[in-house]
Amino acid sequence: MREKLTVIKVGGKIVEEEATLLQLLNDFAAISGHKVLVHGGGRSATKIAAQLGIESKMVNGRRITDAETLKVVTMVYGGLVNKNIVAGLQARGVNALGLTGADMNVIRSVKRPVKEVDYGFVGDVEKVDASLLADLIHKGVVPVMAPLTHDGQGNMLNTNADTIAGETAKALSALFDVTLVYCFEKKGVLRDENDDDSVIPEITRAEFEQYVADGVIQGGMIPKLENSFEAINAGVTEVVITLASAIKDNEGTRIKK
Amino acid sequence: MREKLTVIKVGGKIVEEEATLLQLLNDFAAISGHKVLVHGGGRSATKIAAQLGIESKMVNGRRITDAETLKVVTMVYGGLVNKNIVAGLQARGVNALGLTGADMNVIRSVKRPVKEVDYGFVGDVEKVDASLLADLIHKGVVPVMAPLTHDGQGNMLNTNADTIAGETAKALSALFDVTLVYCFEKKGVLRDENDDDSVIPEITRAEFEQYVADGVIQGGMIPKLENSFEAINAGVTEVVITLASAIKDNEGTRIKK
Repeated sequence: MREKLTVIKVGGKIVEEEATLLQLLNDFAAISGHKVLVHGGGRSATKIAAQLGIESKMVNGRRITDAETLKVVTMVYGGLVNKNIVAGLQARGVNALGLTGADMNVIRSVKRPVKEVDYGFVGDVEKVDASLLADLIHKGVVPVMAPLTHDGQGNMLNTNADTIAGETAKALSALFDVTLVYCFEKKGVLRDENDDDSVIPEITRAEFEQYVADGVIQGGMIPKLENSFEAINAGVTEVVITLASAIKDNEGTRIKK
Repeated sequence: MREKLTVIKVGGKIVEEEATLLQLLNDFAAISGHKVLVHGGGRSATKIAAQLGIESKMVNGRRITDAETLKVVTMVYGGLVNKNIVAGLQARGVNALGLTGADMNVIRSVKRPVKEVDYGFVGDVEKVDASLLADLIHKGVVPVMAPLTHDGQGNMLNTNADTIAGETAKALSALFDVTLVYCFEKKGVLRDENDDDSVIPEITRAEFEQYVADGVIQGGMIPKLENSFEAINAGVTEVVITLASAIKDNEGTRIKK
């Protein structure tokens, strides 16, 4: 039987505020078995960019990454946020290893082609090589992945953290029994967006399509669920959408094949 | 017979300027066999700190690292400079892995005790665990180490790059036949500081002491050579002091037992 592995993706907000970061570090450290943490860092990037006189431009929730902004996200995601988490986990007995996609060539991307929008140095994932990662995980190492990849030609590329988590989970599902957990600011997928307790405990593809047709699921939740079903179809055992503070518990919405 | 490993330390100046960085990446990629790169980044840290309105204070050539400065060096050394090198090496077919001492708990330090000077968040190396590093090196991975360590209690610590290189070389010398190369701005240890070609090709401990007594070797070169002899005594096979542009060649000053 394949060993279990939990891939947890947390957004920037959670890892950038002292109190929520401490909670996350404690909760993540308490998860048993093999695990991977994928983090964002957008708020810190926006803040540091502003301090450096660089304006943050967002289109469809994605950061336009010119050469100066790429330097900022490389510093902030790959350095400040990542190493802060790594040091915090080491203090809790978790043998964390901070990574970008460039490190050990784990995730290679292509610079997003310019269509209506030129996103700049933003990467679309092309290839994940999880073999060295899997060796390390088997030895007790816990990868902590920043939302950065590289193009194989010497450039780092800013890359969506949900995508990093999904692609890493998919690649590792060839070797492990993978649960992918997307943490966000609600308890799960809600039946009623005004009722935080109206969590839908489990969704199949057919139910998802019905919820979308009925207008129950809409907006940014649609691509999140599309990604979740894609991960399931690619071999990930289970995808969970939940609160970061609930990663130890059996809560949230489970996405099933 | 143990396999050969080359640990190369380069200063900030070399990795922070486009032309010298490209030269270094090409030269380093051309070195055959197992290798580790240790880099500085002080000039970039000073520049980014200044842009963020943080004054850089140096005492005896060491940066006073308050909480805000620690954030800057963590970003710049662990993120910007490190990942730029990693991506550049990946483009040259070198399977680089960027690390700080916190990653895989490779180097744990203690915050330097306050004596005449309070250096702040600066680390004195306490323990190097090179076992996972050695596994990765055997698999063809090339560690790229930033001058940062951690204290095991959740804090990153700013740590001298010469020290990181020396300690890493010493720890790996239990498993490899290690050559440690300190790159600096001269061709080697000079007999006459005004003659760049007066390189002393080889120095033993006894000769070093005579050179110091005669005033031939002085200033910052003395601690560099003391560290070199310490590395040799701890099991490192050879220490070389040379120009970064000469790392492929058989030049510079060799420090022998």
